[in-house]
Amino acid sequence: MTILYGYRGRAYDTLQQYDMTIGDRIRVDTDTLSYAGTIMPRYDNSDDLHIVLKLENGYNVGISLQNIRNVTVIPNDVPLTTLQDVQPFDPSLPDILLLSTGGTIASRIDYRTGAVTPTLDAAEISASIPELSGIANIHPVPIMSEYSENITPEHWTDMARHIDGIKKSKYAGIIVAHGTDTMHYTAAYLSYALAGYSLPIVMTGSQRSSDRASSDAAPNLVGAATAIADGIPRGVYIAMHLDQNDGITAIHPGTRVRKCHTSSRDAFRTINGPPAYLVRDSRLEGERSEYYQIESYMPRIGADRRAILVKYHPGYNNALLSKIPGCGYRAVILEGTGLGHIGRESYDAVKDIIDHGIFVGMSSQCLEGRVRMTVYESGRDLLQLGVVPLEDMLPETALVKAMWALSFADDIHDIMLKPISSDLSW
Amino acid sequence: MTILYGYRGRAYDTLQQYDMTIGDRIRVDTDTLSYAGTIMPRYDNSDDLHIVLKLENGYNVGISLQNIRNVTVIPNDVPLTTLQDVQPFDPSLPDILLLSTGGTIASRIDYRTGAVTPTLDAAEISASIPELSGIANIHPVPIMSEYSENITPEHWTDMARHIDGIKKSKYAGIIVAHGTDTMHYTAAYLSYALAGYSLPIVMTGSQRSSDRASSDAAPNLVGAATAIADGIPRGVYIAMHLDQNDGITAIHPGTRVRKCHTSSRDAFRTINGPPAYLVRDSRLEGERSEYYQIESYMPRIGADRRAILVKYHPGYNNALLSKIPGCGYRAVILEGTGLGHIGRESYDAVKDIIDHGIFVGMSSQCLEGRVRMTVYESGRDLLQLGVVPLEDMLPETALVKAMWALSFADDIHDIMLKPISSDLSW
Repeated sequence: MTILYGYRGRAYDTLQQYDMTIGDRIRVDTDTLSYAGTIMPRYDNSDDLHIVLKLENGYNVGISLQNIRNVTVIPNDVPLTTLQDVQPFDPSLPDILLLSTGGTIASRIDYRTGAVTPTLDAAEISASIPELSGIANIHPVPIMSEYSENITPEHWTDMARHIDGIKKSKYAGIIVAHGTDTMHYTAAYLSYALAGYSLPIVMTGSQRSSDRASSDAAPNLVGAATAIADGIPRGVYIAMHLDQNDGITAIHPGTRVRKCHTSSRDAFRTINGPPAYLVRDSRLEGERSEYYQIESYMPRIGADRRAILVKYHPGYNNALLSKIPGCGYRAVILEGTGLGHIGRESYDAVKDIIDHGIFVGMSSQCLEGRVRMTVYESGRDLLQLGVVPLEDMLPETALVKAMWALSFADDIHDIMLKPISSDLSW
Repeated sequence: MTILYGYRGRAYDTLQQYDMTIGDRIRVDTDTLSYAGTIMPRYDNSDDLHIVLKLENGYNVGISLQNIRNVTVIPNDVPLTTLQDVQPFDPSLPDILLLSTGGTIASRIDYRTGAVTPTLDAAEISASIPELSGIANIHPVPIMSEYSENITPEHWTDMARHIDGIKKSKYAGIIVAHGTDTMHYTAAYLSYALAGYSLPIVMTGSQRSSDRASSDAAPNLVGAATAIADGIPRGVYIAMHLDQNDGITAIHPGTRVRKCHTSSRDAFRTINGPPAYLVRDSRLEGERSEYYQIESYMPRIGADRRAILVKYHPGYNNALLSKIPGCGYRAVILEGTGLGHIGRESYDAVKDIIDHGIFVGMSSQCLEGRVRMTVYESGRDLLQLGVVPLEDMLPETALVKAMWALSFADDIHDIMLKPISSDLSW
């Protein structure tokens, strides 16, 4: 009797057809690649389109039924050959550095609890996605292992120092595998700290852990690698699914993007415009344009935490606003309403903050659009108090820019309003 | 010589054709209505499709060229007849109460400065949109005159008391004209304070002041009135443009909507789903469904400001979090990252808040999707600390619900998690 726990529909039928059971050691041939591993149970019941194999490196891969050409049992006395062993570098392909920082893309699911933990490093990620070897020679380097909710400004500076220190002539570009929660904050940081960096830096992640058959890790990494191989200009980008399907990867500008859905594959959206590029049919689409508004590479790697993002809301308690100067803050990014407003009952508290020499910038919780503080009385009053309109900068990007600017400047006003990395337009 | 300052293209040609000059007193007949007023200069150069008339009530209206059938000069000795004088109530039509609270929809543009101020009352709004008289008998009542960035929880309770006090049998529904900046916060409040109210409450506003030819005030009000006249079920809704055009009004559920663009007409979006209804071709489309999850109307009108929304971000300074207990707060709504996370370096500060007996609820800054705190270690750690996952409630809605619940309950945990007005789903 075959034991096919978790399999159903077409996946179940396929395994039945080959008379396979969970635990069998098999070789699966597809049009392009062969996989050798042990059939795993499915705990991810969302589809009947994949079977899951555990490779010798411990990594699970989901193999799409439609790609399977042949399945054979591997006798017990024949060792499993893992795919990473059979993929030599191809000198005709570009070289890409893959830095792993943790996150779901580097996670394995714990089949006991259903929870995931970020235990994979860049080499394991790379090995588990054999399609990458047809696009580029991937050089994996693990640099940290954190979920992105735990990524701090100090991690940002570590990443920037690492990237600043690599031998740029060796690579066509850099992929940074990162948790999705705060990937856009990190992308904004690298855009500032490494402004003008000569290589493209393409961040990517996944919304479902990469050993689940339904994971988006492989298409996202393939999209990121393709963008670099196909000559994306220097800049910092986030490469993630454009929509729910695997067909198209959106390449978002790193200062104009945010995570807009907690769980779906197409969680990332470019705000105030379309993605910078798309990867479709193994090609990078979109008119190549310059990401940076500065001339030459001048890294400034530092971050000062004494900045805060404050989302304003009706009934905001001024008690807390009035604590800001005493907490040592040097910059406050307000997420105001509409075109950039807060209620007049908070004017005194804001004025007090400004009177303490603290920079107060205004962005909008609408997210789309731009602040425009000359239209309404409220906006003009706030301008009068010294609140600085941050044009169409995203609140998250403005916060990161402030933390960065404070690390090397006392007065950040002009820096905040200077376009550096596609971060704001006038 | 004709003086046609600000007119161009087709609008200019039309005035030329009738040999009209700015300042002329004219009567314009359209298919459905006639307008009498003085031709005004155009300061709103975005289109050549309208001419602007100042009516006798001082209000400016933009009239679409394509609707004009005839234009005649009114002799100086004939008084201008304003439209509000010639629209008697039609007993066959439903009666709608129009409450005005201020906002752009109640604003006139100041042609000296280009700024707008909320000086119109409900009667003037109603009179300026003659199309309304074909849909319902509009009963205008001004209740306040505030831009919505200045609307406070005390204004919310004033509105709720006013609505609670009206004679419900007299009206088919209530329109609340409101500034757009915080309209969704007010809609959420009315959804809780007046849960189970027997009449539909349809809020609307405009993104451009209603005396500009390009204003969206008229179509939004017409959409709101049509929704009520066509039998929208009880509930609290926001009626605004579905897209950039005037054709379709989206009717958003009041607890599931937010302003997502600073300036465009289609700024409001239902989060996590399509709008509840659409108004298209003068009909309400969409399957009628119950808005409230409670049995009978039991108004609870109150708001406690001791709640705050905190948008978490990398590098969040715990110094400010640690001030929260001392500021007297009773509830904190966190806008966490992703599925509902904050960095572990803030765990101690959050634990301290909870140890002070303060409710801490988790929502997501992604906005779309829902928190799910069992997937990752971070979420499970936060659950352990006592942070309460707020499912798919919007952060703004959760804040308003907390302010409302605190006004009558010491322990708000169960109230926060009980669906009341389409506010959360399990």
